[in-house]
Amino acid sequence: MALEEARAAGERGEVPIGAVVVIDGIAVSRSGNRTRERNDVTAHAEIAAIRLACEALGQERLAGADLYVTLEPCTMCSAAISFARIRRLYYGAEDPKGGAVDNGVRFYAQPTCHHAPEVYSGFNEVQSAEILRTFFSQKREAL
Amino acid sequence: MALEEARAAGERGEVPIGAVVVIDGIAVSRSGNRTRERNDVTAHAEIAAIRLACEALGQERLAGADLYVTLEPCTMCSAAISFARIRRLYYGAEDPKGGAVDNGVRFYAQPTCHHAPEVYSGFNEVQSAEILRTFFSQKREAL
Repeated sequence: MALEEARAAGERGEVPIGAVVVIDGIAVSRSGNRTRERNDVTAHAEIAAIRLACEALGQERLAGADLYVTLEPCTMCSAAISFARIRRLYYGAEDPKGGAVDNGVRFYAQPTCHHAPEVYSGFNEVQSAEILRTFFSQKREAL
Repeated sequence: MALEEARAAGERGEVPIGAVVVIDGIAVSRSGNRTRERNDVTAHAEIAAIRLACEALGQERLAGADLYVTLEPCTMCSAAISFARIRRLYYGAEDPKGGAVDNGVRFYAQPTCHHAPEVYSGFNEVQSAEILRTFFSQKREAL
């Protein structure tokens, strides 16, 4: 589902990243990146999916929820995932340039991080990275 | 204005932090923390004000805009401020426990930060901190 959301985001001209929030095996929300559509730099796939889930459930936090995302979360999203009390984070490709989980500020290992999810990486990482690579190479060709 | 927004947030039962986005000397948006009201952990004052400004201006980024906030931004907001291309960040009190500008991950000094605002700190820091201290001591008394 996260890969589908990533592809759909790319078709809308957004950087193709997708995320799904799962509770007890049920996908309660899913979103692709929507920063351009919404004129909102915070509408990354992870945050868009977390906001949808919180809206649907009428609650501020998502304790017990798991988040699947095609790319390693950035600094902003890593912190939002922590604030939302996400239990497990599953991500696809690593992001050495912008990631903040296993790269960059490694937020979950910092003393200013007050809740860290369990982290599992490498899920469909080849496909996740390929969707991004194709998107950016098509953008460059279009220039 | 940011202090007013902080006080108003406290009166709504939100952690009392306020922010204002200013372009060419004009306040284009202002907000307090709205996480509880909106069931949205990302609705910190800074992000709420940035979203309002982008919505009002119909643009994704705020190059040339300055952001005033009563407390040192957290990891999530520091990155959102960077993504929004805020030019100057003015903040009130430091936040050793959760801040990410001069404490914590010091995001603007990291290689995964691709735009850093100019940072000015200590604006009305005594008042900014006092509003927070009063709020939390009243909360503790109410327990």
